[in-house]
Amino acid sequence: MTESAGRFLRACRRQDADATPVWFMRQAGRSLPEYRAIREQYSLLEICRRPEVCAEVTLQPIRRLGVDAAILFADIMIPLIGTGVDLDLVENVGPVIRHPIRAAADIAALRAIEPEQDVPYVLDTIRLLRGELGGTPLIGFAGAPFTLAAYLVEGKPSRDFIRVKGFMYREPDLWHDLMTRLSDMVVAYLQAQIAAGVQAVQLFDSWVGALSPRDYARYVLPYSRHILSAVGGNVPVIHFGTNSATLLDQMAAAGGDVIGVDWRIPLDAAWERVGTDRAVQGNLDPCVLLAPPAVIEEQARDVLERAAGRPGHIFNLGHGVHPETPVDHLARLVEFVHTYSAGRRAAGAAPVGVAR
Amino acid sequence: MTESAGRFLRACRRQDADATPVWFMRQAGRSLPEYRAIREQYSLLEICRRPEVCAEVTLQPIRRLGVDAAILFADIMIPLIGTGVDLDLVENVGPVIRHPIRAAADIAALRAIEPEQDVPYVLDTIRLLRGELGGTPLIGFAGAPFTLAAYLVEGKPSRDFIRVKGFMYREPDLWHDLMTRLSDMVVAYLQAQIAAGVQAVQLFDSWVGALSPRDYARYVLPYSRHILSAVGGNVPVIHFGTNSATLLDQMAAAGGDVIGVDWRIPLDAAWERVGTDRAVQGNLDPCVLLAPPAVIEEQARDVLERAAGRPGHIFNLGHGVHPETPVDHLARLVEFVHTYSAGRRAAGAAPVGVAR
Repeated sequence: MTESAGRFLRACRRQDADATPVWFMRQAGRSLPEYRAIREQYSLLEICRRPEVCAEVTLQPIRRLGVDAAILFADIMIPLIGTGVDLDLVENVGPVIRHPIRAAADIAALRAIEPEQDVPYVLDTIRLLRGELGGTPLIGFAGAPFTLAAYLVEGKPSRDFIRVKGFMYREPDLWHDLMTRLSDMVVAYLQAQIAAGVQAVQLFDSWVGALSPRDYARYVLPYSRHILSAVGGNVPVIHFGTNSATLLDQMAAAGGDVIGVDWRIPLDAAWERVGTDRAVQGNLDPCVLLAPPAVIEEQARDVLERAAGRPGHIFNLGHGVHPETPVDHLARLVEFVHTYSAGRRAAGAAPVGVAR
Repeated sequence: MTESAGRFLRACRRQDADATPVWFMRQAGRSLPEYRAIREQYSLLEICRRPEVCAEVTLQPIRRLGVDAAILFADIMIPLIGTGVDLDLVENVGPVIRHPIRAAADIAALRAIEPEQDVPYVLDTIRLLRGELGGTPLIGFAGAPFTLAAYLVEGKPSRDFIRVKGFMYREPDLWHDLMTRLSDMVVAYLQAQIAAGVQAVQLFDSWVGALSPRDYARYVLPYSRHILSAVGGNVPVIHFGTNSATLLDQMAAAGGDVIGVDWRIPLDAAWERVGTDRAVQGNLDPCVLLAPPAVIEEQARDVLERAAGRPGHIFNLGHGVHPETPVDHLARLVEFVHTYSAGRRAAGAAPVGVAR
């Protein structure tokens, strides 16, 4: 593996590298014209179920953008779809569940996942990609149980998450059952991805920022901790949420080698809350990519300066790439992050936390 | 004014009171059956434009819930509607703008507000209410310029605010023009409400939590500061946002006698960031009102304990009452806040910050 190919995994382990690694959530898909061309032929789900096509879509941003890691193209609902949950991935809306969870029987109907039987195409895509990616590491992922439960109980994307919270408050035993089943599913799904060859995994708790710190502690943390301790140790694990500024200490306590951070908190303040014994990933507002290049660079520079050259920073957005994002803005940002961080390092700006 | 009627205004000024005052954002409307009966006859806008009906809707929660303050029933888009912006308040969606702001000409078309001509019904409702409310104080309000701009540029409620942020980054001069016009409108609108008789005002910056602290400082704070300094001094001003845990210090710096806080940060941590020279308002998750009474009381008690009896806490939700909220849960919560805080005070639990 060349030094540049090793950047991402070194940063996950808080080892120094030649430049700050960068990848983008949702780098595969939506904003890329070559992806849109494929989407004219196949639905999102059809892409996921065709390993050759899915591998191609995963590779597109590597070729086009020069990012330091590939992330498997998939949807967080895939393991649920694989185990028979009846749902649609509706264009411009998101997952829509035919029979949202309302009662014990709905939860009892969720069955355990057997990844090689239920989602073989995911594992085949991973095996195919490992042959094609060369030194570029491949990240697998799963939705965290709160985020999955939010979809299952709400029935569709929600602004206020009132149904899932109401369910959680009113039915603590059913909530425990639901979160336990989802956690077991996530563990099996991630372990299968690791066995198939992914070199890191990310747990997406995208909607967890809807919760108070008190509710996170009671209703979410134990399940995330179970997953992160079952999956950790083999490959680096990234634990990600949005709107999570006040949850970062608890998310770090739940586990993960790398804690994902959104733009609502400056990166240095976030790293302080997470603890410098962890790596951090983030945290440019994806909306900034709609700005002129000078504004993008100014804001990216601020993120890099707040990381202060401390080993263990993976540059990313605070959430997924928006479909409206100009592709050349993404490519230029990758180049800027590499050049600026390598230059900063060469100029001998003291990286914090490294004995000199 | 009886002691209980004075609770709210005393708390705004951080003066001790017999019990913690409580009111709810969106206490008028949606969840109340007597409101729904009126809505069968009138649209939301028709209610706002009929002072007798609007006053009745404003009074309903005072009678039904026993809250310590009334808030004028209105919509944050009213001053824009009054000055001729073409928009609909769509049921279950929110404001939909016919011609969203895209260019300089759209901003130039926004004209200054003359409240007595443009929104006479709002001021008439206030005058009517002051005659009927007795000792219960009346809160006026306006949307803050970022939140108004978000609707005007997005054209409809948004999840990610990508259009308004893109506009702000790409067109800083137009942004300044837009925010200046909106700020001047808000100042004139709030000053007219104060002249008509409201005894406090709240500035709702509901969507400001979509911004990074860095962007808040540059694109929002100067305008909010202008409004809060122009309006402040006559009546207490509440400065409210959601998702604002990492903005609280800047929101306090922008101004306001009381800073509104949502549930994503514990109240004591929030008050520390705001500074104890301000009052705070909050911060129960409105979704908690769908929980059984025991859970509601447990969470309300936690909020009250974190306020620690320090003068200057106004109990509220972190955002508006959800339409699905059982009305008896609201009434019981008001009673609990009064009883628990009065009991705590009588038992001599040391209020923080009060010399004994």
